[in-house]
Amino acid sequence: MPSPNDLYSDLIARVTKAALLGSCSAVLGWDRETYMPPGGNEHRANQLSLLAGQTHEWATDPRIGELLNELSDSALADAEDSDTAVNLREIRRSYERSVKLPQKLVEEISRVTALAQHHWAQARSDSDFSAFAPWLEQIVKLKQEEAAAVGFAEDGEAYDALLDEYEPGMTSREVAGVFDALRSELVPLLSDIQGASRQPDVSILSREYAVERQAELGREAAAAIGFDFEKGRLDVTTHPFCSGFGPGDCRLTTRYDPAFFSSSFFGTLHESGHGLYEQGLRADAFGTPLGSACSLGIHESQSRMWENLVGRSRAFWEHFYARTQTAFPEALGTTSLDDFHFAINAVTPSFIRVEADEVTYNLHIMLRFDLERDLIAGRVAAADIPDVWNERFTADFGITPENDADGCLQDVHWSAGLFGYFPTYALGNMYAAQFFQAAGEQLGDLDEQFRRGEFAPLLAWLRQHIHEHGQRFCASRLVEVVSGKSLSNQPLMNQLNGRFRPLYGIA
Amino acid sequence: MPSPNDLYSDLIARVTKAALLGSCSAVLGWDRETYMPPGGNEHRANQLSLLAGQTHEWATDPRIGELLNELSDSALADAEDSDTAVNLREIRRSYERSVKLPQKLVEEISRVTALAQHHWAQARSDSDFSAFAPWLEQIVKLKQEEAAAVGFAEDGEAYDALLDEYEPGMTSREVAGVFDALRSELVPLLSDIQGASRQPDVSILSREYAVERQAELGREAAAAIGFDFEKGRLDVTTHPFCSGFGPGDCRLTTRYDPAFFSSSFFGTLHESGHGLYEQGLRADAFGTPLGSACSLGIHESQSRMWENLVGRSRAFWEHFYARTQTAFPEALGTTSLDDFHFAINAVTPSFIRVEADEVTYNLHIMLRFDLERDLIAGRVAAADIPDVWNERFTADFGITPENDADGCLQDVHWSAGLFGYFPTYALGNMYAAQFFQAAGEQLGDLDEQFRRGEFAPLLAWLRQHIHEHGQRFCASRLVEVVSGKSLSNQPLMNQLNGRFRPLYGIA
Repeated sequence: MPSPNDLYSDLIARVTKAALLGSCSAVLGWDRETYMPPGGNEHRANQLSLLAGQTHEWATDPRIGELLNELSDSALADAEDSDTAVNLREIRRSYERSVKLPQKLVEEISRVTALAQHHWAQARSDSDFSAFAPWLEQIVKLKQEEAAAVGFAEDGEAYDALLDEYEPGMTSREVAGVFDALRSELVPLLSDIQGASRQPDVSILSREYAVERQAELGREAAAAIGFDFEKGRLDVTTHPFCSGFGPGDCRLTTRYDPAFFSSSFFGTLHESGHGLYEQGLRADAFGTPLGSACSLGIHESQSRMWENLVGRSRAFWEHFYARTQTAFPEALGTTSLDDFHFAINAVTPSFIRVEADEVTYNLHIMLRFDLERDLIAGRVAAADIPDVWNERFTADFGITPENDADGCLQDVHWSAGLFGYFPTYALGNMYAAQFFQAAGEQLGDLDEQFRRGEFAPLLAWLRQHIHEHGQRFCASRLVEVVSGKSLSNQPLMNQLNGRFRPLYGIA
Repeated sequence: MPSPNDLYSDLIARVTKAALLGSCSAVLGWDRETYMPPGGNEHRANQLSLLAGQTHEWATDPRIGELLNELSDSALADAEDSDTAVNLREIRRSYERSVKLPQKLVEEISRVTALAQHHWAQARSDSDFSAFAPWLEQIVKLKQEEAAAVGFAEDGEAYDALLDEYEPGMTSREVAGVFDALRSELVPLLSDIQGASRQPDVSILSREYAVERQAELGREAAAAIGFDFEKGRLDVTTHPFCSGFGPGDCRLTTRYDPAFFSSSFFGTLHESGHGLYEQGLRADAFGTPLGSACSLGIHESQSRMWENLVGRSRAFWEHFYARTQTAFPEALGTTSLDDFHFAINAVTPSFIRVEADEVTYNLHIMLRFDLERDLIAGRVAAADIPDVWNERFTADFGITPENDADGCLQDVHWSAGLFGYFPTYALGNMYAAQFFQAAGEQLGDLDEQFRRGEFAPLLAWLRQHIHEHGQRFCASRLVEVVSGKSLSNQPLMNQLNGRFRPLYGIA
């Protein structure tokens, strides 16, 4: 009879094999966005479909279920939070979720969302929600079926089952709780900012910024905060992303606008933050939960921390601004650090989430969270989304989208079936601030370090306290372990109040 | 009971699935050479090994053998050279070869050659054959075992079984026959050229050629001969190659030397020739023999034709030289077309095969063919290779390598276990000339077309007569079908005599 160690090795080998094949898909997906010629699209779809199907087959191999059962009483599963117990717990979690989903439903969701994304793109281009409405209705129905198949707590709701895929262990009620608290402080802050007499000169950022020098500067900044270009790359895509292929190979992308500084610079810092997390995962645990990212929210916390809490801090620019002026003497030669720093921290309500500032961004997310929760609960019909969206948007932002392309059609997520994904963005902001506060308490004056261009201590701290844990803890427990407190909106509000009130000259 | 058509569809689906997975490896292999950061090497090896293993498993699925047997008496296999008969014949050929090889031997060859390539690279760098000798000895032994497992005709030799992998249906004796005939005419041509009073000024090609403009010109030339950049790319690698991922996506690579015109320009034409073949394969037959290249020799015939028979013709440069002078006014502004054309057709014995001209290149190949045939037959021991190489080289070229790096250690092939591969290069030259002659007979004055920059008629002819056949005919039959004659050295010698004798002013 095989020993528990043998069974465990067998299990890990199976799980790792599926992950290794999945990482091949990542390479093909990256190439599709970066270098693939247009003619390759159809064959690439066939390749990716084959890899996805085979990865799913290996990941749902019934032998994995048997091995999990055979190991459930062994000592390997005993010691909570031990390496083996974590892997067994998390492999079981994702395996059980996978096998609960009928193959037919998985294929139907895949088929419908592939078509729906095409129709969404067309509808957005035409700014015509009615063309997308029947697709949204169909997807909502399928996601309701998915939620019913996966199941959720008796005192919970269907949306929990969807959220759980991206933020394991988190419930709608918890999210709503922290969002409500955050909202109650964001709204007055935004109102104060809008009423402030001091306002930034954002035209500073829309001068001429040669693409080549933006690329050089972005690469320099990514390397400065610790992204290892021996183990990664930075390329150009229409929609920036970060894709970790596995140990030693993480790909970032960005886009350059020759007449706007922020999108590539802060986009590069953002993706580098994701990349630092990928590069910090345990190489020896590749393919297992211990070597995988904790949750989407935690992933986002890393990108947001480097982009905003580090990258928009005054200390960062005290170090980096001279270099930036040298790169763009005509655009910035006579602009003061204060004016530049104020400009990159401008807060203004706007229609498009991905272009939003740090204050209004969270309001964008809350709107989507509430609406998609209502859709899944059946409280709102797909056809009513434009009205509901615009009413809520006007209430929250004081402006009304003139068309659906700038409103409820702007994001790809719903057409792709990604219900439960949006809240992880705002959770990421909150995690980031809470982690950053803990890091500051433990590492001393971070600003002083940034002023000297020293980012290694913060990165080492993140490696040790977050990256190397993989999925040892679920996100909310990780927050407690790292900061000693449960998730709260206070660290984020401290950040926002601490940065924006002085800038805007408000109390 | 399933119909023969059902069984055939099942067979094709299995074979295509394996090929589709193999094409994923091609993407990962291309990325490794072009964009992968150094740190990705180990993980990439794991990915490629997984894909190779799974592709092999699918390609050798016993059900394929059963289906082949069930279909062997059906009408689908009947009509010789029909689509279904061709696929059944060629699927059987490669399936039977695969299953004849013991898994243990395949793994041992893979393991030893992976190590041996590393030791070869070190030995070449140190120019120390003795460090590589034991590896070569081991590989020869394994390839002898492979040949014995695959089998060969009673009146044949073990080397035939290895050659058959790259040039199906061709035997050592046939190759030796055409090589001997070719040799008997090449040697006097080379001797005449070396004794000629007119010699080219090759310094023309070693002036300053800005890399950016080389890239632009090479891309323009590739597009001019018909390479479709909507369905392909051109990137930079240390060792140029062409990799067809499947319908609509073919990747070429080249390298640029700012102080040498020929390597990137003719290298790009060469790889474009391979690429045109890949782009000309039947998209609807992807993954099956009908949609696959006929042989390595036929593949090489396409690259060599565009590189040499088209690209080094005077007619090509009558069209393209003015454009080239405009691109490099300082290097070529005052250089005549005649002098340029003579320079790109210089013939000089040299040590390194990949830098050899069209005349001596074939002698390089014959040397390797004879030596590797002797190694496999056991007539020459691995340890004796440097002596045998140098003696033969001196006799053929009139110069003696000063070290093994410039001699028997220059090529990667033997360390990679690629015995039987070398002759396909020279066969490619012969096929190219014979096809080109037939094209000229059928299309009228090709030179006149080239002078007008018209390459589409030749490409359309190649598509129809060669590319679209895939593996319908084996290489030697394809030559007969296309040219009406069996393979001969005459077309190649006519080409070489017709181009070089006038240039060098010899009779």
